[in-house]
Amino acid sequence: MRYPNNLSKEYNSKVNYGNRGMNLEEDLNATNDYYLLTDKAIIHKKPTPITIVKVDYKSREDAVIKEAYFKTPSTTDYNGIYKGKYIDFEAKETTNTKFFPLRNIHHHQIEHLRKVILHGGIAFLIIRFSKLNQTYFIDGKNFIDFVDQGLRMSIPIEYMEKEGILIKEKFNPRIDYLKVIDDIYFKGGNHETN
Amino acid sequence: MRYPNNLSKEYNSKVNYGNRGMNLEEDLNATNDYYLLTDKAIIHKKPTPITIVKVDYKSREDAVIKEAYFKTPSTTDYNGIYKGKYIDFEAKETTNTKFFPLRNIHHHQIEHLRKVILHGGIAFLIIRFSKLNQTYFIDGKNFIDFVDQGLRMSIPIEYMEKEGILIKEKFNPRIDYLKVIDDIYFKGGNHETN
Repeated sequence: MRYPNNLSKEYNSKVNYGNRGMNLEEDLNATNDYYLLTDKAIIHKKPTPITIVKVDYKSREDAVIKEAYFKTPSTTDYNGIYKGKYIDFEAKETTNTKFFPLRNIHHHQIEHLRKVILHGGIAFLIIRFSKLNQTYFIDGKNFIDFVDQGLRMSIPIEYMEKEGILIKEKFNPRIDYLKVIDDIYFKGGNHETN
Repeated sequence: MRYPNNLSKEYNSKVNYGNRGMNLEEDLNATNDYYLLTDKAIIHKKPTPITIVKVDYKSREDAVIKEAYFKTPSTTDYNGIYKGKYIDFEAKETTNTKFFPLRNIHHHQIEHLRKVILHGGIAFLIIRFSKLNQTYFIDGKNFIDFVDQGLRMSIPIEYMEKEGILIKEKFNPRIDYLKVIDDIYFKGGNHETN
């Protein structure tokens, strides 16, 4: 499968972090840069997976990819380490105002999140309702439970409000999701609670 | 920077794991597949980072990348989780028989490994001397110490033999690097020693 919707990710390499109105990925990149610079965590977005078919070698150092296709990702987009723990999450934005459609998360991404939890990692989703200007943290265990119930094709906003945690946007870091992780997974410093 | 040498990574998506004579990346992919299937660890190779310049949309689902360039990676190629710990490593192959040239590891990859250790992760290198048919595990702390001494532009094979751990190739998993991690970081099951 190829998904042109992800293209903007690659085009926005030059980001003016001072500007408002950035998309979720830009906000998360700025947030992760802040975490990295302040030695709080090491969390990176993985490159978009592609299949390369044709490459021109103008010179030894100057290869140009002339034909390539987008691949379905087999894992989530973000991972890294925070307070010694493995962190893994997927981030999605929707223009929908009532629901987050589950088709936006691939089946093997769900299975990946499930495995991360089994192996003792911290797994979650960050979902932004762009028209509502709301960004939610959904813990991986809750998300997997929702999916496993198999009752709905989408997550209603009421579920987000009840089970998720609204992340208030700040200037820096813009989407302070590690604060949520502190509240859920770490209490009184470095001690885990789960 | 663009590095055409990494191309073979993308071309070898169909791998016959039964065959001998695979390159290090193929061996590691097979090893990681084995770890994943046996629920031992979740470790993936990150996609090759590229900058996309031009895309043709034949149809909504059928985007073709027509111009793209290889980017210098800002992190290592492999990461994931094992026994609840964050794992991060770089793998390199050399045809040299006496030395591993340090120019094969980018400066920001070294800084990344340094940060992973500071944050409590397990960082290391896997280096194969293909003509010697030898694959070594070098612990991240040792590697950083070697680099920080600033005495040499390459790691001599004598250092590998003394400070590294030779990984004997097996049928499955081919490059059982988690066994080395067990010996160094975990003793008596799940208890950490570092």
